[in-house]
Amino acid sequence: MKHVKYGKCVRCGKTYEAVLDLTSCECGGILDIVYDYDYIRTRLTREKLAGRTEQSMWRYRELLPIEETTEPTPLRVGWSPLYEEPRLAEALGLKRLWVKDDGQNPTASLKDRASAMAVAKAREAGARVIACSSTGNAASSLAGNAAAAGLKTYIFVPSRAPKGKVAQLMTFGATVVSVQGSYEDTFELSKQAIEKWGWYNRNAAINPYLSEGKKTVALEIMEQLNWEVPDYIAISVGDGCTIAGLWKGLKDLHAIGFIDHLPRLISAQAEGCCPLNRSIETGEPWRPMEENTLADSIAVGVPRNADKALMAIRESNGLAVNVSDQEIMAAQKLLGRTCGVFGEPAGVTGAAGVKKLCEQGKLGKDDTVVSVVTGNGLKDVANAIAACGEPITIPGDMDRLLAAFAEKGVTVD
Amino acid sequence: MKHVKYGKCVRCGKTYEAVLDLTSCECGGILDIVYDYDYIRTRLTREKLAGRTEQSMWRYRELLPIEETTEPTPLRVGWSPLYEEPRLAEALGLKRLWVKDDGQNPTASLKDRASAMAVAKAREAGARVIACSSTGNAASSLAGNAAAAGLKTYIFVPSRAPKGKVAQLMTFGATVVSVQGSYEDTFELSKQAIEKWGWYNRNAAINPYLSEGKKTVALEIMEQLNWEVPDYIAISVGDGCTIAGLWKGLKDLHAIGFIDHLPRLISAQAEGCCPLNRSIETGEPWRPMEENTLADSIAVGVPRNADKALMAIRESNGLAVNVSDQEIMAAQKLLGRTCGVFGEPAGVTGAAGVKKLCEQGKLGKDDTVVSVVTGNGLKDVANAIAACGEPITIPGDMDRLLAAFAEKGVTVD
Repeated sequence: MKHVKYGKCVRCGKTYEAVLDLTSCECGGILDIVYDYDYIRTRLTREKLAGRTEQSMWRYRELLPIEETTEPTPLRVGWSPLYEEPRLAEALGLKRLWVKDDGQNPTASLKDRASAMAVAKAREAGARVIACSSTGNAASSLAGNAAAAGLKTYIFVPSRAPKGKVAQLMTFGATVVSVQGSYEDTFELSKQAIEKWGWYNRNAAINPYLSEGKKTVALEIMEQLNWEVPDYIAISVGDGCTIAGLWKGLKDLHAIGFIDHLPRLISAQAEGCCPLNRSIETGEPWRPMEENTLADSIAVGVPRNADKALMAIRESNGLAVNVSDQEIMAAQKLLGRTCGVFGEPAGVTGAAGVKKLCEQGKLGKDDTVVSVVTGNGLKDVANAIAACGEPITIPGDMDRLLAAFAEKGVTVD
Repeated sequence: MKHVKYGKCVRCGKTYEAVLDLTSCECGGILDIVYDYDYIRTRLTREKLAGRTEQSMWRYRELLPIEETTEPTPLRVGWSPLYEEPRLAEALGLKRLWVKDDGQNPTASLKDRASAMAVAKAREAGARVIACSSTGNAASSLAGNAAAAGLKTYIFVPSRAPKGKVAQLMTFGATVVSVQGSYEDTFELSKQAIEKWGWYNRNAAINPYLSEGKKTVALEIMEQLNWEVPDYIAISVGDGCTIAGLWKGLKDLHAIGFIDHLPRLISAQAEGCCPLNRSIETGEPWRPMEENTLADSIAVGVPRNADKALMAIRESNGLAVNVSDQEIMAAQKLLGRTCGVFGEPAGVTGAAGVKKLCEQGKLGKDDTVVSVVTGNGLKDVANAIAACGEPITIPGDMDRLLAAFAEKGVTVD
């Protein structure tokens, strides 16, 4: 990889050759992939990009840690829609607002970006088996992307993972281990199994290539905005890998001169599980928390990528905002009703954070904001139904319809 | 609409001006939209199309019944991926096989194509409210596409509609009436309510513009195949509107010279509800059937678009194939494991039909086939779980993992 210099520890600064099975630093720190930006500038321009027909994350291959000869993975990952939402912007009192719907990925979450990268690197390494632990979305995305590439998967999920995600896993033919315990317990068991059997490791906090897949969401947002930088980009935060990837993508674009400044990040966590935001707010090191939120994808009490995530939020002069489960479900309805976008609870936590910051007066009429929806609401139907209630249920009779409308106070325009 | 001649009854041939509220013929027949193909040929070429950046169904606007000034609807509908599947082709004994994953639409089904058209026409008509009856997908797609456009919706579903679809509807802010009865009962109640309150009608069998939205799946398949016609296109059939739309798109492309011949259609229905295929097989008029299948989207005992659907299958010299629920769920697993595509039961019924025709020797090593997956498996998680079983569930302990693998016969590579 001529365009990749090395992996560099975000904690101690030690560098490592960008080998195929690159993992963490010997000090325990997580590695960051460092590119030769001068070289990339000679290979990629905004104009060259604009002429490309590849409508997936692989359109940015000069900025990704793959060999020139590596084939795009089979499923169409990325290039999800960015919708401008003037009605919602007005309702919230923002200057402009866009929603990036990353639930529109093959297995319906942003995690497809990291999993496609894992599959690409596993193929480069000649691996036949990939494994990971996950709160659910990384798992189903790995299972789907690996199945399409003909690779076998072993997946470890906490037993609280919603049924939609487990159904995906099973359908994609993964060997699924549901761990009766926390995400931390799940992660530890997967780590032991991966060490024992030598599987290719798709744990995003250990495999530094995976954030590089996730960063493509930032590359897309900026290209879709025609390189005009918004004031803020809001995203939900669990393990920390996603916000770290988002920030890495923005910094890469800045380093090669595609954008002239950087936006501020908004880190949205659930009140019941916000170890990273608590660290931002108090200035103290992060400490584990319980996992008390229905937003399962970000219920991570021991975030594995805390270093990178905290660095991203701080470097960007970002905002941290915590939202209750009730605020999350209200944001789900709001996005559904106003934008026609159905996100899972963790998927809309960024939007819930934006709403709260508007109500607090921390965001307002001069601000332009992109809110990333990280996963599809179909992944977790039980919570959506609990939030929205049941439909009007009647026999097929007009009189019964009129009576039901009257009873429920439905007034027909 | 300079490129649209009129609506023409498929039963009696009577023509109607293509007004905004065009419905069925006075004879009860369904209308077909007839274009001025000579005019369209002067406006659209394959080269012109290739240069377009619009990656949605609206890239084909010269072939769609909208005004030149009509804006694309807000959600990104269409341009779903077409995957070539060499491993599955080999497993089935086909020359080549492609899967068109239309579950990759904003509300996760092909029905988004018709609903986006309904929203475009409702906006042309200045309507503020749209209504429909649906087995579920047309409903959720209408609710989502209308919400994004700021339109209100009234939706009628049979009470058997899966929870995922109802959760979407409620989140999108539709007023939902769940009818305790068959799809036929649901349709009749919606018809009465639409007449009473004068809502814009999105029932595909009544509003002839909607098939024109659905036909974009055919336009995309052919463009994605670089206009090389496959021998067969397979799709699941319920109400009949989707296969009719598919055929219309193919005929349009043939009429303007974009393809030099037409493929044969494969109409796949569930054994427990196959009134249209029964008519094809017996040569007799179709008769109602019970709705005995778990593939809820195609459980339509009284198909509303029988005329157009039967005409399409016959004109194309098509094949009719019925599959059991067991064969449908086996196809769901097969597509998941081999292709990384997770379709809902009705969504994979076309693929189940292809597999069965291969086993019967009716398709084989000389045949090229496109199979359309019409909806995402996340819409109906309960059936996927029933088909795939539960994961290995253990505490986070390596000895327990080894014991569970031994017990379940999992051998690790």
